[in-house]
Amino acid sequence: MMPEKANRMETHTFFLQLLIILVAARLFAEIAVHLGAPAVIGELTAGIILGPSLLGWIQPNEIIRYLAEIGILLLLFEVGLDTDMRKLMNTGRSSAIVALGGFIIPFVLGYLLASLAFDLSTLVSLFIGGALTATSIGITLRVLSDLGQRNSREGQIVLGAAVLDDVLGVVLLALLYEFSIAGGISLANTGKVLAFITLFFLLAPIAAKLISVLIKHVDDASDLPGLIPTAMVSLVLLFAWLAHKMGAPELLGGFAAGLALSRRFFLPFGIALHTETEFSQRIEAQMRPIIQLFTPIFFVMVGLSLNLQEVDWSSAFIWAFSFLFLLVAIIGKFSGALLTAEPIRQRIAIGVAMVPRGEVGLIFAELGRTSGIFDNNIYAGMIMVIALTTLLPPFLLKYIYRQEFTTQ
Amino acid sequence: MMPEKANRMETHTFFLQLLIILVAARLFAEIAVHLGAPAVIGELTAGIILGPSLLGWIQPNEIIRYLAEIGILLLLFEVGLDTDMRKLMNTGRSSAIVALGGFIIPFVLGYLLASLAFDLSTLVSLFIGGALTATSIGITLRVLSDLGQRNSREGQIVLGAAVLDDVLGVVLLALLYEFSIAGGISLANTGKVLAFITLFFLLAPIAAKLISVLIKHVDDASDLPGLIPTAMVSLVLLFAWLAHKMGAPELLGGFAAGLALSRRFFLPFGIALHTETEFSQRIEAQMRPIIQLFTPIFFVMVGLSLNLQEVDWSSAFIWAFSFLFLLVAIIGKFSGALLTAEPIRQRIAIGVAMVPRGEVGLIFAELGRTSGIFDNNIYAGMIMVIALTTLLPPFLLKYIYRQEFTTQ
Repeated sequence: MMPEKANRMETHTFFLQLLIILVAARLFAEIAVHLGAPAVIGELTAGIILGPSLLGWIQPNEIIRYLAEIGILLLLFEVGLDTDMRKLMNTGRSSAIVALGGFIIPFVLGYLLASLAFDLSTLVSLFIGGALTATSIGITLRVLSDLGQRNSREGQIVLGAAVLDDVLGVVLLALLYEFSIAGGISLANTGKVLAFITLFFLLAPIAAKLISVLIKHVDDASDLPGLIPTAMVSLVLLFAWLAHKMGAPELLGGFAAGLALSRRFFLPFGIALHTETEFSQRIEAQMRPIIQLFTPIFFVMVGLSLNLQEVDWSSAFIWAFSFLFLLVAIIGKFSGALLTAEPIRQRIAIGVAMVPRGEVGLIFAELGRTSGIFDNNIYAGMIMVIALTTLLPPFLLKYIYRQEFTTQ
Repeated sequence: MMPEKANRMETHTFFLQLLIILVAARLFAEIAVHLGAPAVIGELTAGIILGPSLLGWIQPNEIIRYLAEIGILLLLFEVGLDTDMRKLMNTGRSSAIVALGGFIIPFVLGYLLASLAFDLSTLVSLFIGGALTATSIGITLRVLSDLGQRNSREGQIVLGAAVLDDVLGVVLLALLYEFSIAGGISLANTGKVLAFITLFFLLAPIAAKLISVLIKHVDDASDLPGLIPTAMVSLVLLFAWLAHKMGAPELLGGFAAGLALSRRFFLPFGIALHTETEFSQRIEAQMRPIIQLFTPIFFVMVGLSLNLQEVDWSSAFIWAFSFLFLLVAIIGKFSGALLTAEPIRQRIAIGVAMVPRGEVGLIFAELGRTSGIFDNNIYAGMIMVIALTTLLPPFLLKYIYRQEFTTQ
């Protein structure tokens, strides 16, 4: 009886923990934004400060972990909801070059550096390469909006590239996940993952239509409020569970659910199934508070999970690792931008805007850590690389656009 | 290692459980509303069907219980937010008679019936009386709205009475909680509870002002979105934790937080501190999806917690108990309404409208059960009484107003 009782947290203790997490996340996010950094940096910092790295007030526990899982699922739902396949087609050639170049080059360079210079295993090297391919669509779009550049030509290119990069990243994540479970990417397994993704991308608009019709029907038939929040969260949970059942990461389910309900989802074959704009806007308006409540818990949880006291900071390895992979992370994304035919200043701006790894990079790192692929040193190094790639570009972009403004 | 692993639910299993709870709650709520019953009846039924009473698909577990606790805290926050002390003053004498009569009579009758006829202990009898005092402000307002009677004179009286009943119910709940912990209501303990409530009711408008100013300041200083959801949930958690620390039920904290932020909070001394209407509306709009997501989990949890297989349905006790307390529950609320000077038809309509115990009655019953005061038989009997008081009035009110319409 006793150990069971000791394990069970009292309700008011849970309330206090959740309170501290929410308030600290917000406080440090505000400080980060005040200093010109993305909010996510503040939330990570809150977790590092509250967790075993510094204060040790909150140990990562099961209930907080479940809430964090819902948070990241909902974030991927939102990313899916924001993904607009038509934008990608309109921005055309440049977007594709930026996305593919900025995807392949960091992956290959990261893999080679990890496996040749650091003598790491294939699986670890692939995950490091994978984490370096990510572009945080959220942070990138946020930075461009803050600078009033979202509708400029380079803004459109970055938007398209970030959307494509996001889809590529999710596919790669599924492949790496498969690789980490099966020990290799067999043709059958790759086929299965690709079949699943194709199935999802083919069924998503049909599901969206069916769900729209069903929800609208229920909405018309009764005046019982609150359908959208429960229906949407249920949908995300269902797709996450289905994804798991098909051997893919649960996160892909959240993304697919969002993509299925996004305002303009296009099949590659030119088939378009529009979700009603009014309905789509209502979903966004009602889901936003829920997403905003849950997602900081994920980033705080990542900070809590990172025990920096276990890292040997006096070792040359961690410093060399962080420095070299930071270079690869920046050069990789820049190369993609430099391959385009845009004016040089625009190419630089695009390159900088694509650098932030943010939450997408963290998903790779977190998956690497929880599945035991990354040890604490590599995980800490990757977190440093992700943090720096996320922290530096906003300052650089501000500088670039201020220069441009001055020289005009 | 093994037992720990066995205890730990996998993430996708948690997702599936939450999915089933949300979908079942909605499905049965829709069916209930379709049949003319309140949604809460459907949610309870979903829990009874999914839980050990029938299918046994979901056992009540720690994570679902925590989510349910957040749900009921948020529901009380919403009730507090809806509480308008000025309405109470405007509806005047009749509201006060309905509220006080409908509070004292069921409490005394319920207590006497329990302790004299059923020979139950003082504590159990007090909790039964307490559960019978409740009026579900949510269900009552919903039924009146559905019938287009919310702004009629009897609608105003019921509204005022339900608001006052709600405050009285929360105070009584705190006293009974104190009684159940201390084994009696000592003058010191009663004083402490009353001091706490008074302190809360005195500090709430000041807190509301301070919070408004702080939140508005933060909102102006940064364009980081999502302040209201995290700030409001944090506030509710903070007040719940403070309530616990002061020896009061955590639920009171949720109610106080809502009251503090309600649009028109008045101190008894005529001091008014208005929250800006625009800000209050934003809070309501952004909190509504979160409340709608969480609260069904509470009612499903109540259904899950109710193991009807443990109830001896062949015993005469359960039938006699349910029947007699249902009579007391109806007569008690009717008496309050009959004491007013309104026309007889209006008195009947008011009496019927005050009958639903709904979620407020369930809070008493649930507190009685979790603190071990109610055994399974008494708990089941109370649930039946609450279910019937909640289920019958909507049908009766429809009948009364249809009659009135026909005779006009």
